[in-house]
Amino acid sequence: MEKISKILIANRGEIALRIIRACKELEIKSVVIFSEEDVNGVWVAKADECYPIVGNSVDAYLKYNKIIDIAKKTKCDAIHPGYGFLSESAEFAQECEDNSLIFIGPKPQHIELFGDKMASKEAMKKVGVPVVEGINTPITDMDEGKKIAQKIGYPIIIKAAFGGGGRGMRIVHFADDFANMFESATNESIKYFGKGDVFIEKYVQNPRHIEIQVVADKYGNVLHLGERDCSIQRRHQKVIEITPSPLLNDEVRQRLCKISVDAMKKLGYESVGTVEFLVDERDEVYFIEMNTRVQVEHPVTEIVTGVDIIQRMIEIAAGDKLKYTQEQIQFRGYAIEFRINSEDPQNNFFPTTGTVKKYLTPGGPGVRLDTSLYSGYTLPTCYDSMLGKLIVWALDWKGAVAKARRALDEFHIEGFKTNIPLHREIVIDESFKNGEFDTGYLDTNMDRFNMDAQSSISSEEEKTLKLAEMVKQIKENNLVSLQNNFTLY
Amino acid sequence: MEKISKILIANRGEIALRIIRACKELEIKSVVIFSEEDVNGVWVAKADECYPIVGNSVDAYLKYNKIIDIAKKTKCDAIHPGYGFLSESAEFAQECEDNSLIFIGPKPQHIELFGDKMASKEAMKKVGVPVVEGINTPITDMDEGKKIAQKIGYPIIIKAAFGGGGRGMRIVHFADDFANMFESATNESIKYFGKGDVFIEKYVQNPRHIEIQVVADKYGNVLHLGERDCSIQRRHQKVIEITPSPLLNDEVRQRLCKISVDAMKKLGYESVGTVEFLVDERDEVYFIEMNTRVQVEHPVTEIVTGVDIIQRMIEIAAGDKLKYTQEQIQFRGYAIEFRINSEDPQNNFFPTTGTVKKYLTPGGPGVRLDTSLYSGYTLPTCYDSMLGKLIVWALDWKGAVAKARRALDEFHIEGFKTNIPLHREIVIDESFKNGEFDTGYLDTNMDRFNMDAQSSISSEEEKTLKLAEMVKQIKENNLVSLQNNFTLY
Repeated sequence: MEKISKILIANRGEIALRIIRACKELEIKSVVIFSEEDVNGVWVAKADECYPIVGNSVDAYLKYNKIIDIAKKTKCDAIHPGYGFLSESAEFAQECEDNSLIFIGPKPQHIELFGDKMASKEAMKKVGVPVVEGINTPITDMDEGKKIAQKIGYPIIIKAAFGGGGRGMRIVHFADDFANMFESATNESIKYFGKGDVFIEKYVQNPRHIEIQVVADKYGNVLHLGERDCSIQRRHQKVIEITPSPLLNDEVRQRLCKISVDAMKKLGYESVGTVEFLVDERDEVYFIEMNTRVQVEHPVTEIVTGVDIIQRMIEIAAGDKLKYTQEQIQFRGYAIEFRINSEDPQNNFFPTTGTVKKYLTPGGPGVRLDTSLYSGYTLPTCYDSMLGKLIVWALDWKGAVAKARRALDEFHIEGFKTNIPLHREIVIDESFKNGEFDTGYLDTNMDRFNMDAQSSISSEEEKTLKLAEMVKQIKENNLVSLQNNFTLY
Repeated sequence: MEKISKILIANRGEIALRIIRACKELEIKSVVIFSEEDVNGVWVAKADECYPIVGNSVDAYLKYNKIIDIAKKTKCDAIHPGYGFLSESAEFAQECEDNSLIFIGPKPQHIELFGDKMASKEAMKKVGVPVVEGINTPITDMDEGKKIAQKIGYPIIIKAAFGGGGRGMRIVHFADDFANMFESATNESIKYFGKGDVFIEKYVQNPRHIEIQVVADKYGNVLHLGERDCSIQRRHQKVIEITPSPLLNDEVRQRLCKISVDAMKKLGYESVGTVEFLVDERDEVYFIEMNTRVQVEHPVTEIVTGVDIIQRMIEIAAGDKLKYTQEQIQFRGYAIEFRINSEDPQNNFFPTTGTVKKYLTPGGPGVRLDTSLYSGYTLPTCYDSMLGKLIVWALDWKGAVAKARRALDEFHIEGFKTNIPLHREIVIDESFKNGEFDTGYLDTNMDRFNMDAQSSISSEEEKTLKLAEMVKQIKENNLVSLQNNFTLY
């Protein structure tokens, strides 16, 4: 890989650290930019060079002229955008190219194409990918929308044309609700994405969210790395991601992989990407969108295939050919990723903040932790609540669920509340254990989960209780003479 | 696994935690005993029940009547001995059996057989395993030893008959040195093992230490899980362990695996075990000893095969049949384990002690950490210096070495010195990177390693320097206006 020897990472948090790790393993120098709030980020210390960017919170990571300027002055060959921020900006990718910097991602035209939900659906339909029935041109007019909904037939879904992550999205089951829902969807869309344009399409009921990881080089070689099941979502935000999908039948799996690889070949896509589908109860599949960047949930695929997705992404950007053929990719075991968020599951997932006090992390066999947390770290309040990801692996699904239970039990963060109690409830739930869930799983089951019991005892109290219990047992059973004042960890 | 629902763990530190993890995943209750010094051990808190044993330091973990008493009173079905302590005591295994407790390990007669180096060599020779030329009966008389050495021909090695771990072991190259070496070997043997009896055998020069992991159930089914290369040793103590061995040719690998499996079948061995060999430059192999317990280095095998060795060991003890056939065991990629010790590599590896202050652990893809360390933990001074193990994995050897470099670089323990600087030097050494090393590697190369540079800057100073460098770059390059007092993590 001669063309890349130094990379600027235009991101923060766990994904910045993830990219630094890939760089170090490839013996590539790394440069990070960071906002005032991120000065204590561990990734800032781990990079070979770090440069503050004046500008608050999110802004700092969006100042793309400044970022390109730093990349040039520090003699970087390439920029890795991570996910979020500038990762899906075709303008930024083009600007990199115009400044002789390699943008580590797809070509600007593909970012642009797939950034436009309508155009991407059209393009995918043309290359033989099944899509959900709906309109091709986004609309802003409510009456027009109502007519379209009537024609498609309820239930329908309203989706922001320029958005993502569940914002500006509404499901409408009855014609009477249409007006209200349309208004709130467009308002949210304007608030988050600056435009109120929406699509209307058939709503696929009780689907699983299945996505295919593709990897494509500049020479027309395209591989898939299997699927991920991201059906466990809260308000359209992924919470848990799994590979392989525990209940997906192999015919559907192969069909989705083939559709995705064929489409990417026909479209001349390069870099890594994710083709997202809904799979309904009759195993019909519908393309929903394509993500033209590395996904938060890429680690589950890495564990099961052994392929380092970020490293391959960098090599592809440098012009390397793919290292493997499809036949050489081996899939082994099951992996589950849990997004660890600073939010309070007992208080409607309201974001929390604070300083990490006691910090015990899970380890041992089959456990991977991707996080920039450390004991003593104070969370900035202005960023996404995702603090990192716990990923577990085992040879079979049952073993992976057992591993998850064990690893979540070991994960102890004092200083603020997290969504770990929610994960703990999910992994002991019978439906989850049986692999029976669709995208409605969390909304349906949230009320059943008892997160109070887990967190009602503070860890200090817990220690005292455990010690008292121990002393009781010792005395009752006369197991040992208690000659010392034991204090329990 | 009906027969085991509660296990007493007669051990401490990382291996106690490792066994607790296996128990939790199998939904088995765990009970630990602990010494006064270990009251703050994280494994004590993680177990379902914990009982202090009066008795200082090592003694607490050797009081087997007391341990069996606690196991019975707490209604345990089985005892897991881990490694060290009582793990290779045939008496203890027998005592468990006599008290209707399942000893999680081989039958007492096999522990006894392989605990006796002479008898085990004889037994292995009888079932067709090649051994090193030497005497069958240990001796205590120096003159007799001298005659034997003369007959075998120098170089010879003197080995404690009842010892291990390099204690009471001396290599003699010339007849003139025999008397001195014999005396110091027997003295050390008496000091550590209570008996001065030694063996004398041919010394195999520049060998690699290759060991085969075997797994055997109670029904005559025996599997191998490949080999481990443990050639990187310091004074006969393993420091780094690798699977597969990077330069071992496949014919030798298959030969060693077949020899080991055949021998275990013929001897009726059950549970997990490790058959250790020396492999010389002409690919001749020599059995040296058999370890009838789980090894410190078992994780490298777990990563490459995906098989959880501790879980399978428990199931076998409970009377379960092996879950896999040999053909179902898949080997993928390369794994390297680094033993993390509290010792000062700049001061002749003298043991260090203290409290963990800042603690940053490596993570991300291909990294496994087995340790009971945590931020705030104070090391007891009376135990082995091994604090845990860092294990890395990648699809190829080059990737695994790169991963090791990256992960060791991320590992930051403040509060006392560790051997991490030694590991960092090894993984950038050309011979190591080329997989070219034998058991003499560390003794030969230690002087070349520069561990001073790494640790001469305290982390506080390092921070200040890095900050100063950053500010310098910012000013020189006029990259940003420095409006704030940035303090670097």
